Amino acid sequence: MDAGDAFASRILPGGPVSREAEAIENHHRRRSQITAEAYAEGVLSGDRALLGRAITLVESGAAAHQRLAEEVLERLLPHTGKAIRVGITGAPGVGKSTFIEALGGRLLGAGHRVAVLAVDPSSVLTGGSILGDKTRMEALGRDPRCFIRPSPSGGTLGGVARKTRETLLVCEAAGYDVVLVETVGVGQSEVAVRSMVDFFLLLLLPGAGDELQGIKKGIIEIADALVVNKADGENRARAEVARQEVARALHYLAPARPDWRPPVQTCSALTGEGVGEVWDVVKAFRLRAIASGVLEDERRRQSLGWLRRMVEDHLLARFHGHPAVQAILPVIEAEVARGAMAPTAALAALVRAFEGGDKEEAG
Amino acid sequence: MDAGDAFASRILPGGPVSREAEAIENHHRRRSQITAEAYAEGVLSGDRALLGRAITLVESGAAAHQRLAEEVLERLLPHTGKAIRVGITGAPGVGKSTFIEALGGRLLGAGHRVAVLAVDPSSVLTGGSILGDKTRMEALGRDPRCFIRPSPSGGTLGGVARKTRETLLVCEAAGYDVVLVETVGVGQSEVAVRSMVDFFLLLLLPGAGDELQGIKKGIIEIADALVVNKADGENRARAEVARQEVARALHYLAPARPDWRPPVQTCSALTGEGVGEVWDVVKAFRLRAIASGVLEDERRRQSLGWLRRMVEDHLLARFHGHPAVQAILPVIEAEVARGAMAPTAALAALVRAFEGGDKEEAG
Repeated sequence: MDAGDAFASRILPGGPVSREAEAIENHHRRRSQITAEAYAEGVLSGDRALLGRAITLVESGAAAHQRLAEEVLERLLPHTGKAIRVGITGAPGVGKSTFIEALGGRLLGAGHRVAVLAVDPSSVLTGGSILGDKTRMEALGRDPRCFIRPSPSGGTLGGVARKTRETLLVCEAAGYDVVLVETVGVGQSEVAVRSMVDFFLLLLLPGAGDELQGIKKGIIEIADALVVNKADGENRARAEVARQEVARALHYLAPARPDWRPPVQTCSALTGEGVGEVWDVVKAFRLRAIASGVLEDERRRQSLGWLRRMVEDHLLARFHGHPAVQAILPVIEAEVARGAMAPTAALAALVRAFEGGDKEEAG
Repeated sequence: MDAGDAFASRILPGGPVSREAEAIENHHRRRSQITAEAYAEGVLSGDRALLGRAITLVESGAAAHQRLAEEVLERLLPHTGKAIRVGITGAPGVGKSTFIEALGGRLLGAGHRVAVLAVDPSSVLTGGSILGDKTRMEALGRDPRCFIRPSPSGGTLGGVARKTRETLLVCEAAGYDVVLVETVGVGQSEVAVRSMVDFFLLLLLPGAGDELQGIKKGIIEIADALVVNKADGENRARAEVARQEVARALHYLAPARPDWRPPVQTCSALTGEGVGEVWDVVKAFRLRAIASGVLEDERRRQSLGWLRRMVEDHLLARFHGHPAVQAILPVIEAEVARGAMAPTAALAALVRAFEGGDKEEAG
């Protein structure tokens, strides 16, 4: 709207150009004709087209869209919170898409409605892994009770994670009672996803001693269950060895939750063997977490954590966007890096620049 | 100085009171008589009294002191960077103080000058662990070539860590060529200390299966060497079993450094057996890190990381100190926690409060 308005006000005084401006204005009016109420009603009634458009709105970086998105979310919020939110990660090649397709099929069969969100801030760089996933998940995607949404490509991890959270809420409001959030397992986005799901699943490859290769440190510790995939054919024995080894390694790590010992299982996403057992674990966890109040507590903590991270991101963006800071930061960082300036003195200089460096001090 | 000046200017016009003001001013002048130059010269010449006062200055939270401290640090900076900086942690009861006394004695014997800094933000709560440590380290503390400094009690972890960094630099400038930074091993301060030392040592207890108990997750992964202490008398065999188990567990963790596989050793701080071997590892690591340029790279990264964390802390402190933010934050956080307000909307409200909420938007 901003660009359109500015354009219109510049060329308004009569003539053929003003008709062009009018057309642009009308175009913008049409685009924003969908009110927050209409968006919310569409999503709540299960209108897939409006669901898609609502998510696009939520993903938009434009200021005007953000205000409208906030309004839509505010309306949807009372209808969220009912889904089982599960994060699924694993190194490339571990078979995440096949696993999600196998699990998703089972869940649909059991009467669930399933949304699959893919978080992949590096999709632009890795060149089309999202596209590959979508192709492989095609069977699942054709089912009307299933909604598959890749994350918008590009953007910062913080931005992608923020949008994924909101997309998750929109999907919940639309009646999807299982939300699977997939990440690529390279360590950047897992912690962000961990902070928006109820249960975090790590898929591993069979291969004695190497089963944790390719998994960034720290990810094992945030997993609520570890599953060695591809336990089929001649890999079956190796998968069982890997399972035992992983279980032993896990023994040395303090559990992420005081009341939950992450199980280690095997499965074959290809044959479907063991996939049901993985979901049994998720269900068992959920029942316990609801009964003990852990689920509610954690979601409350997640919401507050999210808010706090957004506040931090916002403050840092303002700081780094300040012209006076931008002017001196590279020089100051170089001085600090080569040991010529103490970080404390560097902080003082940056703060003076940020808060208006022209105030002279008396001391 | 601020308070004194304000007081003086209020009551200056003649009479007996002005003499009082003069006395106060003189008092402040005397306190600040030590110039940055004098502090720096004292520290560089190895004057222990001035070293202690310089550290007290660095630790001070008063604004006037901070400016002076910055000046002192700026002068000392060219003389820093030459020490081996080693972090030592472990659960309470693992024998950290005995280990440091044993190691410190050896280092003094080998011609080193040793500074021991203790980081313990919870010392007020745990009730005198610092005092206990100081008593136990008494033999070491009596040696003039050794300098022991507990962290100031209380304060936030960020504040304590910041002061410990600066204290470390001051000690280096004073000619201590080994700086040992001790933490209590409960997981709060280890990451902070890890980011200011060259080598991070984790002490463990013998006890099959339990050797990692009491160690917060994540600490094992940042250790550059793991040492099972108390490998003496009837504990010797148990310590060896523990060593093997820990080594096996370590196998499953991606190493923190691409070019260093953390060794697992045993020692007895009580008898001194194995303590020299621990130091051999530190020396071997250092030689490699210097040769490969890793040490320099890491110290550069540490300085920049420190600066960035301080910037973040500063921005957050400003935000949380803003009256309009303080007025609405508790309400907004409560709304978010109970799911009545979306974190995105909460962010928008907080930002409006922080940046002056009276600006009305046109859209």
